[in-house]
Amino acid sequence: MAATIRPVKVKRKFTQHAPGSVLYQCGNTIVLCTAMIEEQVPPWLKGGGQGWITAEYSMLPSSTSTRKGRDRGGKIDGRTTEIQRLIGRSLRAIVDLKKLGERTIAIDCDVLQADGGTRTASITGAFMALVDALHAEYGKKPLAEYPLVDSVAAISVGIVDGKVELDLDYIKDVAAEVDMNVVMTGKGKFVELQGTGEEATFDDEQLAQLISKAKQGIKQLTQIQRETLGKLWKFD
Amino acid sequence: MAATIRPVKVKRKFTQHAPGSVLYQCGNTIVLCTAMIEEQVPPWLKGGGQGWITAEYSMLPSSTSTRKGRDRGGKIDGRTTEIQRLIGRSLRAIVDLKKLGERTIAIDCDVLQADGGTRTASITGAFMALVDALHAEYGKKPLAEYPLVDSVAAISVGIVDGKVELDLDYIKDVAAEVDMNVVMTGKGKFVELQGTGEEATFDDEQLAQLISKAKQGIKQLTQIQRETLGKLWKFD
Amino acid sequence: MAATIRPVKVKRKFTQHAPGSVLYQCGNTIVLCTAMIEEQVPPWLKGGGQGWITAEYSMLPSSTSTRKGRDRGGKIDGRTTEIQRLIGRSLRAIVDLKKLGERTIAIDCDVLQADGGTRTASITGAFMALVDALHAEYGKKPLAEYPLVDSVAAISVGIVDGKVELDLDYIKDVAAEVDMNVVMTGKGKFVELQGTGEEATFDDEQLAQLISKAKQGIKQLTQIQRETLGKLWKFD
Amino acid sequence: MAATIRPVKVKRKFTQHAPGSVLYQCGNTIVLCTAMIEEQVPPWLKGGGQGWITAEYSMLPSSTSTRKGRDRGGKIDGRTTEIQRLIGRSLRAIVDLKKLGERTIAIDCDVLQADGGTRTASITGAFMALVDALHAEYGKKPLAEYPLVDSVAAISVGIVDGKVELDLDYIKDVAAEVDMNVVMTGKGKFVELQGTGEEATFDDEQLAQLISKAKQGIKQLTQIQRETLGKLWKFD
Amino acid sequence: MAATIRPVKVKRKFTQHAPGSVLYQCGNTIVLCTAMIEEQVPPWLKGGGQGWITAEYSMLPSSTSTRKGRDRGGKIDGRTTEIQRLIGRSLRAIVDLKKLGERTIAIDCDVLQADGGTRTASITGAFMALVDALHAEYGKKPLAEYPLVDSVAAISVGIVDGKVELDLDYIKDVAAEVDMNVVMTGKGKFVELQGTGEEATFDDEQLAQLISKAKQGIKQLTQIQRETLGKLWKFD
Amino acid sequence: MAATIRPVKVKRKFTQHAPGSVLYQCGNTIVLCTAMIEEQVPPWLKGGGQGWITAEYSMLPSSTSTRKGRDRGGKIDGRTTEIQRLIGRSLRAIVDLKKLGERTIAIDCDVLQADGGTRTASITGAFMALVDALHAEYGKKPLAEYPLVDSVAAISVGIVDGKVELDLDYIKDVAAEVDMNVVMTGKGKFVELQGTGEEATFDDEQLAQLISKAKQGIKQLTQIQRETLGKLWKFD
Repeated sequence: MAATIRPVKVKRKFTQHAPGSVLYQCGNTIVLCTAMIEEQVPPWLKGGGQGWITAEYSMLPSSTSTRKGRDRGGKIDGRTTEIQRLIGRSLRAIVDLKKLGERTIAIDCDVLQADGGTRTASITGAFMALVDALHAEYGKKPLAEYPLVDSVAAISVGIVDGKVELDLDYIKDVAAEVDMNVVMTGKGKFVELQGTGEEATFDDEQLAQLISKAKQGIKQLTQIQRETLGKLWKFD
Repeated sequence: MAATIRPVKVKRKFTQHAPGSVLYQCGNTIVLCTAMIEEQVPPWLKGGGQGWITAEYSMLPSSTSTRKGRDRGGKIDGRTTEIQRLIGRSLRAIVDLKKLGERTIAIDCDVLQADGGTRTASITGAFMALVDALHAEYGKKPLAEYPLVDSVAAISVGIVDGKVELDLDYIKDVAAEVDMNVVMTGKGKFVELQGTGEEATFDDEQLAQLISKAKQGIKQLTQIQRETLGKLWKFD
Repeated sequence: MAATIRPVKVKRKFTQHAPGSVLYQCGNTIVLCTAMIEEQVPPWLKGGGQGWITAEYSMLPSSTSTRKGRDRGGKIDGRTTEIQRLIGRSLRAIVDLKKLGERTIAIDCDVLQADGGTRTASITGAFMALVDALHAEYGKKPLAEYPLVDSVAAISVGIVDGKVELDLDYIKDVAAEVDMNVVMTGKGKFVELQGTGEEATFDDEQLAQLISKAKQGIKQLTQIQRETLGKLWKFD
Repeated sequence: MAATIRPVKVKRKFTQHAPGSVLYQCGNTIVLCTAMIEEQVPPWLKGGGQGWITAEYSMLPSSTSTRKGRDRGGKIDGRTTEIQRLIGRSLRAIVDLKKLGERTIAIDCDVLQADGGTRTASITGAFMALVDALHAEYGKKPLAEYPLVDSVAAISVGIVDGKVELDLDYIKDVAAEVDMNVVMTGKGKFVELQGTGEEATFDDEQLAQLISKAKQGIKQLTQIQRETLGKLWKFD
Repeated sequence: MAATIRPVKVKRKFTQHAPGSVLYQCGNTIVLCTAMIEEQVPPWLKGGGQGWITAEYSMLPSSTSTRKGRDRGGKIDGRTTEIQRLIGRSLRAIVDLKKLGERTIAIDCDVLQADGGTRTASITGAFMALVDALHAEYGKKPLAEYPLVDSVAAISVGIVDGKVELDLDYIKDVAAEVDMNVVMTGKGKFVELQGTGEEATFDDEQLAQLISKAKQGIKQLTQIQRETLGKLWKFD
Repeated sequence: MAATIRPVKVKRKFTQHAPGSVLYQCGNTIVLCTAMIEEQVPPWLKGGGQGWITAEYSMLPSSTSTRKGRDRGGKIDGRTTEIQRLIGRSLRAIVDLKKLGERTIAIDCDVLQADGGTRTASITGAFMALVDALHAEYGKKPLAEYPLVDSVAAISVGIVDGKVELDLDYIKDVAAEVDMNVVMTGKGKFVELQGTGEEATFDDEQLAQLISKAKQGIKQLTQIQRETLGKLWKFD
């Protein structure tokens, strides 16, 4: 029997200032994913004719059952840093940065409510915000060519009580012996594969199962993205 | 003719982890106001038998038309600090901290979309989140006596092009010669009065008009709070 | 009977490097207020032809009866930030920044001894340092036109034991139910009005009395400024 | 033909203060890996009877051809944070923290010379420093039972010019379309699998090849660890 | 002919909250030196029965002809750190910390006006503030025995245009090839000797002359301290 | 009988990326001293035609018997700052910065193992790294003239149990009543003289002995530098 992901709800244009603003809900995890376009690039890219995508991730203090302190101490914790970098890399993998031109797309993923899978929800939601932002940009100042080459989505899989499970909520995530985040394109290519056994290790057989379940989840997410974006979906 | 505030929409229980979670919209300003209860007080109050209310305020990067950097540099900007302190003082003014007992209510006001009046929206929305959080707490671990003594709401007034105006949106706020934030209780007492003329000064006559308009706004907000809270409203 | 402020002593040219250097004493509060002129403006004003006034406020560790730690942790506390911003706004309100030209006046208010009212003493003293600095500047490199349009002074009022009091010292300040700082020009216009009831609220009648007493205090301070500045006073 | 890793040299007891001190060289990458034992655990583990392993990673400024600034700004960069967390997780995966008792093993990996693969060299070298430190500890204050359950080593693989390569040096690492770090135990279980395609994606076939080559590298490293540790090797 | 130091003025009890508060002027250098007593010691001395002396040094922004930024960035500059440590060591050298008991004396040296020699002025002035603070403490809570064993003073010497000079003002200090600060007790013992040739070196002959001139200066300062402290001088 | 320094071992070209890389061992103190050349100068020297030398000093966490935390909090401790500044000044004293041209030599001294005298070891070792770096530079892009005018070395002396001792190891350093670091050139000129009596003072006779022993140590170190550098030694 095929594995099923948690119910997904997507609300585009949730706020009005960002050209891409997606409220993405997967189970009880809710992330506001926005994309804003800035007509400049980081210093190390200046004059090279290519663009960039940055991402920031944050959890609101009230997003967790015990209040989470804000990132205000001048140090961002390691987990936040890792997630931000993962979101940025995942989106850059499906963008032709040269076609983007010398502009930066700033992605912000702010978790309003957390119940496991906030980083994969961020990637899946941010992709749709990115599409909306690029579409809005086309109206104003046409890009030379459409810079997106594929869609991208992400899902978690894990081994919980010895069993491979798809799309872990918080309780399962905490209980998991092995935790894996998989980022794939709509066309079925891997972008990132991060498997971690903190309390345990995993063998070849388990690795194969984890990847297989993850692919099932990604397919479902890709279909949701396709339906949500409607005419803006250009990846078939 | 009486002055009218911008349309207000309130959505209680917007997120599920915080016992008080209010999505407060006033015109195009949207603030998520949450209240969470922690069973401890700051060090300087330990053992004194009284509670405390803290408040944090932040704007999401995508809440403004030009992306706003996060407060991550280890320094919170002066404006944020002032607003946080104002929200905290305003709520403490209508709470009997002794009756609260040795617990802290942590208020978080996260601006999702900004169009002027974010600090007054934060106070008005946070009051309702506070009521919900106290109500939830009553179920679990009854407080000795109800600690709220009055309601509180806040509104901005200003002088724009020489004319006194109520509830300024962003465009008017930027244009205002004089800007005043007024925090009042449902029973009509002042909690805070902050009038500032950066580019200009104001005289007695103008001060009287500013205060008069602010009172009209506060009355309308108090009525909205009363209707929204229904049976939880205990301040008449 | 008219309310009276605490005795004021003013020593101009207290130190020699700053063109404006005023040791301002009000009761037992002593603040060194200096004004220095820099021939540049903050980045956001460059090329606009107008000047700027910034202000910094600090208390020496030995200024209070219990030693106060220095602002060295990379975070300025909220109170300091609020006071610095208030001083800056108050002085900018009586300066025609266009006539100042593209220069910045840096105001520093360092509290040598604190006994209540340090922020209002800072404003009142800094105004005189500002006049001295502009006068010194006139000698060197004449400004197109005199940029000061009025004088400015500030005083605190409060409700202590239910009674409205003028110019609170530290003991009264701590005991006050309501605390208000009023900044006014020599010509009787309001610049700032900041009334706060942390433990209490106040009504219309009390507001009227607070403002009335504050005006009496401002008049006395303005007279002291006039006498101190002698020929440099140009605001009648 | 089997893939071969770069030449490895290991010097144990390189410095004298840390009970485990290994100078690990792989190709032109040189890392000083040390392990020190502290008789306390982080606050969240106090009283639970189990131990902990932390890891810090740093590159000396002169370890790279262009001088690298020190981590002194109060912010550790994202890459460093990710690597530190990876090293810690990798070592904890082969330690029975309960048998360790309430002590912390602090691992430090300081890169003296960098030529690709510094994170995998850190893990492989730190494992040997960990064994030496535990052995030294046994002499002083016998642990109840030997806490190590397996060995651990790490290697990088990647796709360079479309070809799967093992143990990338800096030039290949920069050129790689896909970069994967694999952490495995001596008994052949996976601990971590981190595959990233920044400029590219990878398919199932390539994933299989990457994992296969990584396993060949891990086997060689495990053999080197076995020979180096001699009688201290207890994992067959 | 004997070398002469710049004119010195000392004003004790300059502010009222610190039990020792000395406004020390030497030439055009003015430092406010205060000493406050705290009934606790740093953590590493707790329970050992001995006291401690700490020192902080800061220059007001207006103390120099070009405005000096405040130490607010979270990093104290190297020069400030060196001076603070020097002041603390110099005062601890003449105090029997055991006789002081478990209390800390916090010395603050705030430069109001700088014209060379601010660190040596700080030491010389702080010694008198320390005597006053200990004397005030004797009244309240008698120390077992008088903890001061000698007086301490400090002076700068340098080589300017090849000539050995005493008590350098700012212009000479900038021009000096060799700069030396000498801290000595009233009884003629060395506490610190810090000679630096940034642009130049110095030989044995010059070293002898520098030390000889410094001793002449210290004698004059010690005499001023003796006269200023009157009956509180107990070091002959 | 002449005083003798601890055994010294020097390994040049210890790492390959820095043109000067010296592993300097003196007794049980081991410091990696590197020199790298950057083709730019700090902002305040731009366009002046002269070069600069900066120095950074750090101790690896495992260099001491109790693990030492890294300098990552955004604040460098006072001792580190003092040592860095000392190393920089000492090397600049023997370099003709004009002949260096507009380039910066970045010195890094990383202590791998500490047993007293790390700052003096840093200076003595860094001098040799500097010579190697300049020599490597000559090959690539000839400097107008050789910028080194003398050699430099440093040694510690102290009074331990009333006796003057040369080249203190950690145990003696902790026990020393007086601690002095002396930096001298190969030609016998003083560069720095820093004598400190934290728990004690010292008299003229002791000062003379301290300086005499230090000179004996410097001579031995200079001879070691001469032999180590061979043909690159150009200072006789």
